[in-house]
Amino acid sequence: MYRRCFGTMWCVRPGVVLLAMGLLYVGDSCRAETPLRSSDFVNVLMPQPSGLARGSGALELTSRLRVSVEPIRSGKLDRAVARAMDRLSEKTGIPLLLDARTKAARGTLELHVQSEGEAIQTLDEDESYALKVTPSGVRIDAPTVNGALHGLQTMLQLVQPGKNGYVLPIVEIQDSPRFRWRGLMIDCVRHFEPVEVIKRTLDGMALVKMNVFHWHLTDDQGFRIQSRRFPDLTDKGSDGLFYTQEDAREIVRYARDRGIRVVPEFEMSGHSTAWLVAYPKLSSGRPPEGIRREFGISDYALDPTREETYTFVASFLAEMADIFPDRYVHIGGDETQAPDWKSSPRIRQFMQSHELKDPDALQAYFNQRLLKILTDLHKRMLGWDEILNPALPKDVIVQSWRGEESLIKGAKQGYQGVLSAPYYLDAMRPAGAHYLADPLPSTADLSPERRRLILGGEVCMWAEQLNERTIDSRVWPRTAAIAERFWSPEQVRDVDDMYRRLDAVSVDLESVGLRHLSQEGVGLRQLAGTEDIDALRIFASVLEPVSFSDRYQQQRTSQATTLDRFVDAVRPDPPSGREFGRLTMAFLLDPKGDKSDRDQLLDRFHRLSAAVPEVQDQMKQSPRLGDVALRAEQLAGLARAGAEAVDSLSSGKKLSSDWSASTSKLISEAKQPGGIVRFTMLDSLAALLAAVQSNR
Amino acid sequence: MYRRCFGTMWCVRPGVVLLAMGLLYVGDSCRAETPLRSSDFVNVLMPQPSGLARGSGALELTSRLRVSVEPIRSGKLDRAVARAMDRLSEKTGIPLLLDARTKAARGTLELHVQSEGEAIQTLDEDESYALKVTPSGVRIDAPTVNGALHGLQTMLQLVQPGKNGYVLPIVEIQDSPRFRWRGLMIDCVRHFEPVEVIKRTLDGMALVKMNVFHWHLTDDQGFRIQSRRFPDLTDKGSDGLFYTQEDAREIVRYARDRGIRVVPEFEMSGHSTAWLVAYPKLSSGRPPEGIRREFGISDYALDPTREETYTFVASFLAEMADIFPDRYVHIGGDETQAPDWKSSPRIRQFMQSHELKDPDALQAYFNQRLLKILTDLHKRMLGWDEILNPALPKDVIVQSWRGEESLIKGAKQGYQGVLSAPYYLDAMRPAGAHYLADPLPSTADLSPERRRLILGGEVCMWAEQLNERTIDSRVWPRTAAIAERFWSPEQVRDVDDMYRRLDAVSVDLESVGLRHLSQEGVGLRQLAGTEDIDALRIFASVLEPVSFSDRYQQQRTSQATTLDRFVDAVRPDPPSGREFGRLTMAFLLDPKGDKSDRDQLLDRFHRLSAAVPEVQDQMKQSPRLGDVALRAEQLAGLARAGAEAVDSLSSGKKLSSDWSASTSKLISEAKQPGGIVRFTMLDSLAALLAAVQSNR
Repeated sequence: MYRRCFGTMWCVRPGVVLLAMGLLYVGDSCRAETPLRSSDFVNVLMPQPSGLARGSGALELTSRLRVSVEPIRSGKLDRAVARAMDRLSEKTGIPLLLDARTKAARGTLELHVQSEGEAIQTLDEDESYALKVTPSGVRIDAPTVNGALHGLQTMLQLVQPGKNGYVLPIVEIQDSPRFRWRGLMIDCVRHFEPVEVIKRTLDGMALVKMNVFHWHLTDDQGFRIQSRRFPDLTDKGSDGLFYTQEDAREIVRYARDRGIRVVPEFEMSGHSTAWLVAYPKLSSGRPPEGIRREFGISDYALDPTREETYTFVASFLAEMADIFPDRYVHIGGDETQAPDWKSSPRIRQFMQSHELKDPDALQAYFNQRLLKILTDLHKRMLGWDEILNPALPKDVIVQSWRGEESLIKGAKQGYQGVLSAPYYLDAMRPAGAHYLADPLPSTADLSPERRRLILGGEVCMWAEQLNERTIDSRVWPRTAAIAERFWSPEQVRDVDDMYRRLDAVSVDLESVGLRHLSQEGVGLRQLAGTEDIDALRIFASVLEPVSFSDRYQQQRTSQATTLDRFVDAVRPDPPSGREFGRLTMAFLLDPKGDKSDRDQLLDRFHRLSAAVPEVQDQMKQSPRLGDVALRAEQLAGLARAGAEAVDSLSSGKKLSSDWSASTSKLISEAKQPGGIVRFTMLDSLAALLAAVQSNR
Repeated sequence: MYRRCFGTMWCVRPGVVLLAMGLLYVGDSCRAETPLRSSDFVNVLMPQPSGLARGSGALELTSRLRVSVEPIRSGKLDRAVARAMDRLSEKTGIPLLLDARTKAARGTLELHVQSEGEAIQTLDEDESYALKVTPSGVRIDAPTVNGALHGLQTMLQLVQPGKNGYVLPIVEIQDSPRFRWRGLMIDCVRHFEPVEVIKRTLDGMALVKMNVFHWHLTDDQGFRIQSRRFPDLTDKGSDGLFYTQEDAREIVRYARDRGIRVVPEFEMSGHSTAWLVAYPKLSSGRPPEGIRREFGISDYALDPTREETYTFVASFLAEMADIFPDRYVHIGGDETQAPDWKSSPRIRQFMQSHELKDPDALQAYFNQRLLKILTDLHKRMLGWDEILNPALPKDVIVQSWRGEESLIKGAKQGYQGVLSAPYYLDAMRPAGAHYLADPLPSTADLSPERRRLILGGEVCMWAEQLNERTIDSRVWPRTAAIAERFWSPEQVRDVDDMYRRLDAVSVDLESVGLRHLSQEGVGLRQLAGTEDIDALRIFASVLEPVSFSDRYQQQRTSQATTLDRFVDAVRPDPPSGREFGRLTMAFLLDPKGDKSDRDQLLDRFHRLSAAVPEVQDQMKQSPRLGDVALRAEQLAGLARAGAEAVDSLSSGKKLSSDWSASTSKLISEAKQPGGIVRFTMLDSLAALLAAVQSNR
């Protein structure tokens, strides 16, 4: 009989020796643990720590808990402790809010933190921590405040039910990240995201120990950051939605308080329509008439041949350097099409006189000039794949949207890199797929020295088909799984166990205000116009959004497209696909045996069948629901066929070849594009069909 | 057979004559309409307009919709139009966001607005509007911008499904409020509410045409508004959570943009612990050691005998007058216990020399002094019941928390009044009960002249057992029903029809960001620690929070109490009680007849039964869920008994007297306090039991 495997690989990084409670980890040895079989510790940590040893017993949590911090005094740490105590209190129902801080030398929760860390958080900041739970208390040791922040998050994830209330299991953890750059990029241009949304996103990132917020602030559709030196950038180059400098400083402060760096991106030389609407003199050719409302690559580009362009950009970047203190600035650099670079006699003349043989060389020239400007500002330059050019020195960083090969190729040439290609959330792939993509597999053909050039990875959330209502369910919880990839040892890659833990982490993410789990209900109620969405919820449970490009093909989305359809309500990678898969596999292993899997499958098919007529009634009242009328019809057929297959396989009553033919047709029709959503359980149905066919 | 009655009374205010599409309303005649039977108009307006005539046919909504405004230019109106277009776009999926405003003289939506209204919105502002939908467009006429705002809200509520997309039905509406004061008070002291929460509350208020936000800003538990003149008021007199002056100005601006006045409340002389913690010299006796963490009435009071008190208060109120431009200031004035006023020789001496015979007289003296201060600031004074004292002139306004009698008594003496007693949301009463309480029933023994002194009503949301997570489900949607009471003609009081419309309005309220419908799921997931809450949802659907005082008796809540229990997740007045009632009544009318009601009832009882074991499993994993262990056990018995009763009544199979006795016991035990929640369907079960018993 099929059973989910909860065994997990535990691994300690080389050089870390952890001696605790009778368990000994040495060097980089790995061993299998089965935490779920322990009576006193259900491991729902995410990301998994690099080293964990567990004892028996637990520390009971009570309202007598007191916190002490030494030797440093740190406002940032104090605020983090206050937030952690609030969450602990919420999680356990134990009233801790009033003055849990103690002046005594030793609290129940002792934090020993050696330094505040760099004034401006660096790439090389030591983020490690050790956490020890004993029957008498918790101790967190960290060289820096950021390490202590991670330790507090781990402690909160350790809380679990005990015999009389909540407990922390007796454990000893030594933890540090595998990669130094664990990022999330949010495109706040194609659709604007309010400060509130960014803040809760940062809270979510902190929960899973991410440390870089890459803020995509300018693009063809708008300039989203206020410049006092060049106010037209937002006055003319946006639709009025942008971050003031105070907003940006507040976000930077908020992020820093959570151990997160903010790397701003100002796209040049392509994706620059907004610059040029505001300041037409910067344009390579005829300037654009307005900001772009459509998506895709535009023909406009900054003019790399004029000194005025560099003076302007230098002045702008100097202004931004003060708002964004991080050492890194992202200059975009991707998808510069710029037909003007080929057609303009003036630009061709410039290329000739500077011995620039093609537009790539011209862009490399532009990037060299940018690099000089940034270097003068004591900044380091980051850009997308296209900036990779032999003309550029090795201290630029390449963010790879093209793929692992491109990253490895850069590293071989000596460039530092950050991997993004497998982490595009708008591809609407399951968490498990993202999870298995490794920025630096041990099999990669790179010398140890070159391996260090791979700084980490970044999740990318582009916003063509995203707004403030839908962002949370697109970003979370999938990003938490990727965060584990960036933090935990390479060997931690059991997908089933990841999903088991993701369920708990997802609910935790909700506790900091994220709406990824509640948004579906909100969206469905808005579509139905009534609170009564029981049937609609069941229907929606087996549908998920199609990928960005599939949606674009079906809908030609632009900024005018309202993102309030069925596809916007449902979320990627819902549990139904995995649940159907698990039940179907279990059932098919022994169709005539244990009835429990059969009954569960039948129950699901029946619930789906029963929901369809009610959903179809609601569609009559809601024209917007009409998008998925075909899907409802298809579901009726699929659920009936599924139940018939299960019935046949368990009872031994044969089904006709006509049945097989029509079911096969049903499945293949259901795979066709329709309603901008796709079914999650077609593979399970196909497996049932195949079993019926092989049975005949 | 029982059927819900959808008939509604339509009423026109005296003097309004509305001639439209063959229907004639004259004077204050009322007639019954049955909008739901019309093929082209489902009336989900809330509040109901004072006059409505409907034609046949509809205006199709398309992306060609254009808006024109004349003759005035108003930024406030422009912003309201932009918000309305955004919501219309979201509601219909029609892309309107890009430049729906036209420069042409006539749009599809024509707004004819005569004046901006007063710079500072007054009590007597004309809020009326007329709205006319014809096959070619919509026209809103209003004397003021605020009237036009109401017209836009009505237009949005008129949107409904048509044959090919969304339409507005052909209607003609003449509308104006019954009461001038339609308020909501939020206590932001006992628990603090972030600016974000206040803003979405204001959005909700605007949706149902409320016009006063009464902001309870100071109390024993903290001073929540920053004073620059007296910074210790928040530095020492709060826990660090307070509104900055910028926050307050932003709220006032935001409210004004939505046609809502902001009336601040600064509690004096009682409920003043926070003042005295900050400035002990103001205290009547020994000053408090810290802000209060418990609730209930404190013994501390401002010292009414010292000139310094008045100098201080005058200076403070002068500072606040600039932040809160509204004509009215609420000075609290309730529940001054002040034992010092009896025991202090100094205060007794003062009373004697001023011929103040008792503490009430001393408080009246204090209020007279306050009134003088406010009058000098060109403000009018508002206070709770207790300020009512013959020593005070007639231009103070009394907010009645004691009851209708108290209000009427005040009006007879010539005082203006606002009714709050029947609108206390923390009593956790059903919307229908609040709805039927009228601030000024036509039967009230008051002369026409005195009737005008009753300005309206105010919903009160006290915050002892409320925080930012639970506020929405406590305030909404019940407040929408009360808002109708304050706006619509007295005769509009069909509770069933109110609930039918409330379902639609509740979903609309969600569209402006309120979380009253999504919070239950969030809370249940936090309790269960998993996304899988199907069974828990079913269990929760038949439970609701007990009243404030019942909870206090069971839990002794203080500020330290975490509001993250089962009771905090569930919401008051859920649909289950009404649905069980409706089904039970329909079934009992003919138990052996139509099987549909029987089957629906049985299905509900079975679903409840089936959910219990899973909920009990989850309780083992979640100590916090243990609160309702007894309720789960009781539900198992109740659902079984319910199903048995239905089965017996429909089949004619008799049940024993033992069965009746044990069921009766089950029901009465389930009525006992437990888990801080109560069942919603006990009356239906009692009715089934009675039917079984009368059948024997």
